[in-house]
Amino acid sequence: MTLAQAKKVETQGGPGTRLARLRLSLSELRADALLVSHLPNVRYLCGFSGSAGLLLVEESKATLFTDTRYTFQARQEVVEAEVSIAKKGILRASGELLRSRRHDRVGYSLSHTTVAEKQALEMGAGKRIRWVADENVVEKLRAVKDAGELAAMREAAVLISNVFQSIISLINPGVSELEIAREIEYRIKGGGGSGASFETIVASGPRSAWAHARPTAKRFSKSELVVLDQGAIIRGYCSDMTRTVHVGRASAKIKRFYHAVLEAQQAAKQAVRPGARAADVDKAARASLSTIPLDRHFTHSTGHGLGLEVHEMPRLGKGEQTALLEGMVVTVEPGIYLEGVGGIRIEDDVVVTAKGYDDLTTAPRDFLEL
Amino acid sequence: MTLAQAKKVETQGGPGTRLARLRLSLSELRADALLVSHLPNVRYLCGFSGSAGLLLVEESKATLFTDTRYTFQARQEVVEAEVSIAKKGILRASGELLRSRRHDRVGYSLSHTTVAEKQALEMGAGKRIRWVADENVVEKLRAVKDAGELAAMREAAVLISNVFQSIISLINPGVSELEIAREIEYRIKGGGGSGASFETIVASGPRSAWAHARPTAKRFSKSELVVLDQGAIIRGYCSDMTRTVHVGRASAKIKRFYHAVLEAQQAAKQAVRPGARAADVDKAARASLSTIPLDRHFTHSTGHGLGLEVHEMPRLGKGEQTALLEGMVVTVEPGIYLEGVGGIRIEDDVVVTAKGYDDLTTAPRDFLEL
Repeated sequence: MTLAQAKKVETQGGPGTRLARLRLSLSELRADALLVSHLPNVRYLCGFSGSAGLLLVEESKATLFTDTRYTFQARQEVVEAEVSIAKKGILRASGELLRSRRHDRVGYSLSHTTVAEKQALEMGAGKRIRWVADENVVEKLRAVKDAGELAAMREAAVLISNVFQSIISLINPGVSELEIAREIEYRIKGGGGSGASFETIVASGPRSAWAHARPTAKRFSKSELVVLDQGAIIRGYCSDMTRTVHVGRASAKIKRFYHAVLEAQQAAKQAVRPGARAADVDKAARASLSTIPLDRHFTHSTGHGLGLEVHEMPRLGKGEQTALLEGMVVTVEPGIYLEGVGGIRIEDDVVVTAKGYDDLTTAPRDFLEL
Repeated sequence: MTLAQAKKVETQGGPGTRLARLRLSLSELRADALLVSHLPNVRYLCGFSGSAGLLLVEESKATLFTDTRYTFQARQEVVEAEVSIAKKGILRASGELLRSRRHDRVGYSLSHTTVAEKQALEMGAGKRIRWVADENVVEKLRAVKDAGELAAMREAAVLISNVFQSIISLINPGVSELEIAREIEYRIKGGGGSGASFETIVASGPRSAWAHARPTAKRFSKSELVVLDQGAIIRGYCSDMTRTVHVGRASAKIKRFYHAVLEAQQAAKQAVRPGARAADVDKAARASLSTIPLDRHFTHSTGHGLGLEVHEMPRLGKGEQTALLEGMVVTVEPGIYLEGVGGIRIEDDVVVTAKGYDDLTTAPRDFLEL
C-alpha cells in the first residue's frame, strides 16, 4: 500500500469518505462551499498535517491551500483534494479562487477565523459572497470516532497508562516536578508516541490545587499530594489521563477525599451511554461529591471530548444538552481543589459503546502512598 | 524577595513599567482602553502565564480576567493588575466591565481575536464602543528586549547549543529521527529548560527537504543529510537553532552547498545593525546564494523575531520595512531545499547591538560528517 493509499483508508472509515459525509452537511447549512481553516479539521478531512493550510470544500472538488514550506509534504499526505501552493498567502489564494466561482453562500468557522483573516478573505473573494457560520459541522463529524481512530486512541491511552506506571517508582521526596514531567515525556516517545498531547502537568503540595499548573523545579516534600496529568499522541490521536498520588503517608481525611473523587468518577462513568445528555454525566459527578459535601471544590467541568485535539466536542458540563453517541470518546475527570492543601483529580478516557462505556485508560486507580 | 516582587522586576526593565510604557501607545491609537487577548502579551504585561486570560488596560487601572481554574495562580503571578475571576466566561466579564465605563474607543487585536470572540465582546460591551485595531502596540514593545529578557534568551540559546552538542554522538546509521528528537527534549529539561520552544524537528535524507517536517520513526541511513531544528524555553523565553549534519561522508557537491548556506548566513548577519531594514538582511542572504546560484531553492524568509514566542516581530523577509533596533532578537536562518535530495539550513539567534549584532547561539557551525 502506498502512503497515499494508506491515507485514503485513514480518511474513510465510515460509509463513504469523510469529505463525502461533510458534503451532506453543506445542504443543511444551505452553503455552496465550506472553507475549513482549523488545522485538525483540515487534517481530518484530507490528511494534511502541516501548520499552514486552508481547505476549500465544494460540491465536486476540494482544494488544499498551503505555502511553499509544505510543497513536498502536501504532495505526499493529501488525498481527495487538489493541492494549491500559495505564494502570496493562503487566505489570498483561497479568496481568489472563490472570486472566480459563482457561489452565493460559503460556510466558515467563526471560532477559528480571526477578524483579520476574515477581512482578508472578504477582500480576496469579493462582496458577492455571503459568509455563513459553519455550525461546527466538521467538529460534529469528528466527535464520533471510526474504528481506525478508536484503535489509535486505545493505543494512546494504553501507552500513557504504561508510562505512568513506569514512573511511579521515581516519585520520591527530593525529586522535582520537572524531573518527573520530562521523564514522562521521554517515555512517551520511547513507547512509540509522537509526543505528549499537551504540556505534562506534575503539581505537588499546595501547587496541586492549581488545576492547570505547569511543572516547576519544586521538589516533592516527605508528605504531600502530587497530581499528574499527562497524555500521549499516537498517529495524531490524543490520550489524556490524570492520577493523584501521595508522597509519604496520607491523613485519613485525604484518603476519604480521594475515595470521594473516585466514587464521583465512577458515578459519572455510569451515566455515560448513548442518548444520555452531556450535562447528565457532569451532574452525576457533582451529585456524588455533594453527599460529602465536596462539590463546591469541584471547580471545572467533568470532562471533554478527545481525538485529534485534546479538547473536542462534547464538553461534559452544566447545561450541555448534546446527546452522547456510540463512538464518542470523552474524558471523565472530577477533581477537588483545596487552597493551601492540594488537589485531587482522577481522569480516564472512555468510549461510548452500545451498552454504556468502555475504559480506554488502563492504569489502576488505587490510592498510592509512595 | 517575594514572588510578586520578583515578577514586578520582571515586568519592569526599561524606564517605568511595561504597562506604563504601553499606556503611552493608547494616545497614539486615540483609544481610551486596550483589551489584550493574546496570551504572550498578557504575560508580558502583567506576569500571568495561564491559558485563559484577558487584560483590560485603562488609563489608571488594569484588570486581568481569568477563570476559576486559575484563581490561585493569578493571585500569585499577577502584578499591577486587579484579578477578576469570571464565572461565566472572560469575554462576557470583560464586556460587562466595559459596559459600565464611559469609553468611546477600545483597542483590540484583529489577528488574535476570532470573529466569535469579537461578537461576544460586542454583545457584552454594548453598541456604544468603537473597537479599533491595536496596531500591534504590545508586539512592538515586546520586539525590543530588556536586560532581564536578554539574559533569559542568552541562557536559552546556550542551553540548546549545549544540548545539540551533547547529542551529536548519538546520530548514527540505524537511529531514528524520533529517538534523537526525544533525547533533545529530555536534555532540554535536564539542563534547566522548562521545555522545548516548539516541536523539535529532526528530518533526514529526502525528508530534510521538508522545511517543517515532524520527526518520524525513519532511521538514518549510512549516508544522508540530517536537519535538526530545536529550541529551549528559559523563564518563558525561547531559543531557536538549526544545524545540518551529514551521516557518513558527504559528496563534494553537498559540502559546497553547505558552505554556500553558511556564507549566506554570515552575509545576513553582517547586514544586522540598528537602523537596517528587516528586508535588507533577507536580501543579503539571497544575494549571497544567488552567486552559486542556489537562491531559487531558498523558499522561506531569512529569519524572525524571537522572545516569549518563537515567532515574533520583526520578520526578516522581502518587503519588510521595519527598522532594526538595538535589543531586538532575531533568528538568521537561510536554507536550501532540493526535492529528493535533502535540505540544508543553519540558524542562529542574534541580538541587535549598538555596533551590529551579537550571537546568542554558541554551537559551532562546522560541517560535520558523522
